[in-house]
Amino acid sequence: MSHNVLYAQSGGVTAVINASACGVIETVRRHPEHFGQVFAARDGILGILREELFDLSPEYPGQIAALRHTPGGAFGSCRADLGELQTHPEQYQRLLDVFAAHDIGTFIYNGGGGSMLTAAKVARFARLNHLDLRVIGIPKTIDNDLPQTDTSPGFGSAAKYIATSVREVSLDLAAMSGTSTKVFIMEVMGRHAGWLAAAAGLAFNQEDSPLLLMFPERPFAQQNFIGALQERIARHGWCIVVVAEGLLCADLSFCAQAQQSATFGHEQLGGMAPQLAELTRKLGYKTHWAVSDYFQRSARHIASKVDVEQAYACGVSAVSLAMSGRTDLMVTIARTSDEPYLWALGSVPLDEVADVELPVPAAFIRFDGFGITPAARRYLLPLIQGEDIPPFRDGLPVFADLKLQMAEKRLPDWDLL
Amino acid sequence: MSHNVLYAQSGGVTAVINASACGVIETVRRHPEHFGQVFAARDGILGILREELFDLSPEYPGQIAALRHTPGGAFGSCRADLGELQTHPEQYQRLLDVFAAHDIGTFIYNGGGGSMLTAAKVARFARLNHLDLRVIGIPKTIDNDLPQTDTSPGFGSAAKYIATSVREVSLDLAAMSGTSTKVFIMEVMGRHAGWLAAAAGLAFNQEDSPLLLMFPERPFAQQNFIGALQERIARHGWCIVVVAEGLLCADLSFCAQAQQSATFGHEQLGGMAPQLAELTRKLGYKTHWAVSDYFQRSARHIASKVDVEQAYACGVSAVSLAMSGRTDLMVTIARTSDEPYLWALGSVPLDEVADVELPVPAAFIRFDGFGITPAARRYLLPLIQGEDIPPFRDGLPVFADLKLQMAEKRLPDWDLL
Repeated sequence: MSHNVLYAQSGGVTAVINASACGVIETVRRHPEHFGQVFAARDGILGILREELFDLSPEYPGQIAALRHTPGGAFGSCRADLGELQTHPEQYQRLLDVFAAHDIGTFIYNGGGGSMLTAAKVARFARLNHLDLRVIGIPKTIDNDLPQTDTSPGFGSAAKYIATSVREVSLDLAAMSGTSTKVFIMEVMGRHAGWLAAAAGLAFNQEDSPLLLMFPERPFAQQNFIGALQERIARHGWCIVVVAEGLLCADLSFCAQAQQSATFGHEQLGGMAPQLAELTRKLGYKTHWAVSDYFQRSARHIASKVDVEQAYACGVSAVSLAMSGRTDLMVTIARTSDEPYLWALGSVPLDEVADVELPVPAAFIRFDGFGITPAARRYLLPLIQGEDIPPFRDGLPVFADLKLQMAEKRLPDWDLL
Repeated sequence: MSHNVLYAQSGGVTAVINASACGVIETVRRHPEHFGQVFAARDGILGILREELFDLSPEYPGQIAALRHTPGGAFGSCRADLGELQTHPEQYQRLLDVFAAHDIGTFIYNGGGGSMLTAAKVARFARLNHLDLRVIGIPKTIDNDLPQTDTSPGFGSAAKYIATSVREVSLDLAAMSGTSTKVFIMEVMGRHAGWLAAAAGLAFNQEDSPLLLMFPERPFAQQNFIGALQERIARHGWCIVVVAEGLLCADLSFCAQAQQSATFGHEQLGGMAPQLAELTRKLGYKTHWAVSDYFQRSARHIASKVDVEQAYACGVSAVSLAMSGRTDLMVTIARTSDEPYLWALGSVPLDEVADVELPVPAAFIRFDGFGITPAARRYLLPLIQGEDIPPFRDGLPVFADLKLQMAEKRLPDWDLL
């Protein structure tokens, strides 16, 4: 029964994915009767295929504990997924070999919808081949677009960063607007779903605020936008625009399309803010703009306490599920009450979450398309509750410092693809 | 002796300019034997000319105290300065009228170099006309370009935000770089001086780090940049570039020139990050970029405790100087020791700081032009020490909520210019 555990991180990292790693590693270490040692793959599934596994045995408990407050992905992440079994059987054979060589009995994959698809493929392959392998997914995405779970770890902290930043910047803009800047545009992530733009709505408590949110769920309509902007400025003297990077034009193409990524076929977006700023300047408003990019998913110093707790708990739960012999599941968070926010952990078959993207529901977007509804506020507010300030030394946050010692390879090198 | 005090904010606001306001107002209130009431002009010098003065008497002490942790400029700011006495005597006559109408005996102006010039003009006019008026300046600028003072309130907090953000994002980039993004570009403020770019150097403790800083003090040399970038990526696998908005091209024009501001003749910069990203993508590196813009000067949640203390102390000192009958001075901060950081308050004639911009000294920029020296580190590190987290409610920071009741006008309306 004391097989080893392999943990890996996948997709864009977050402020709290390492808190899930912390939950996994600490829980495995608390159960030597059940598990051998725990490995972490370098760069997600790619590291498994390459047999690049970090041996976590020599890591100090204090440094593993520090993962809880460390942003980024401590073991490296990747944007690659497994091919289909039919077309890429050699990838699956290689996984089998690596798992066997390192006596892996539990594989825990921490990522978003695409990563859950990869986990589901591994689980299916294991089932077909009667392997003694438990495959468990841990949700992770700042985009909050995973179905079947109340939220995904990573989102709450990004949401808190955005709402805090917008609240702070609103005071700056208010001070300058009398004689200078009238419009401030902030571009946030969200390729297909506007959850992060929605989070900006929390910056103001009242509905009647000088804030326009622009969702990928609502294609850009220039005249509506101009009208709404002018109305806000006439009433308040200034306006903040928070626009999702994935805003669609009327023809449903991305408004901002920076370049094709050569590697994985994703378009790399970015540039909505300067593009909108050109428009608002033409309207005669002095405009400032900001693009948060990676900051919104790395800002561990302003993480949501609820988010950190959920991330850690999901890690613990993944290990518990494996200990109970369960497999082919993703850990989920179920909300049982809005206020106070009560939640419990659950699980769902990987297939039900694999590669599904959940948009912001229509009931959460205000009728004019530029704000959130009270229902959205009830949903979002619990997710940003509480602060979880990391330790600071010499004025700066201090993060985990791991040895990251590579486990000895036992297989011949493997050429990818 | 119990004349009133008029306080005003000028120029781009910061995370701590309201802490100076707090110091001014609380100190005036503690000395009813010396002062009447305290007014704050709306939108800086413009509010004085327009006789738009907030009567602060009805503000609750708790809300005045809350100014200490409130970013932005609570009374509004402006980018306008007074004209010359020779060409715009009517502006000075109007100031005289407003000061007389509201029995102003002390005028405290809180701003940067341009604002100190305006304060100096007022002081000179008062002297020439034998007015019973004390004029005191309080330094404020995130650009840290005021001479004669160890630093200016506002800079330390922006520096801490930038260094913290870069340290956090470095973990994100490190995780992604194995298979995806190799370059992250952050654009920071700094039109003529690279102090904020320099602050990013604090994100890494060691000299040998994957970080390139680009200073306005060092015109852009494309081949040097490409060489340094390639070298960092070859050695570390990734690189963070922090570029000042005011980077100059070889011909000493701004590399990024967004538009001419119709109002005050400043060019509005912005766009260095996407411009550099175009270059690094051409070199074959997947690149992410961010522009912090107002966030770096509003992020009160990650303010430097030292900065907040200095901002408040400068406010107190301005009032003390006025109480001693001093005038025509700006409060300064003098450093007496690097480690531990010891500082004391001083003062300097307004003329010596008016409209002077202090660049980063050559001794602070590494010989290759892309980093900071140990001397810079010794200077910068004390300024970001300590955290001063504002109170949070419902997941978000809570800021001062003032009544901002306008004092009754006693003069006829005045048409500007």
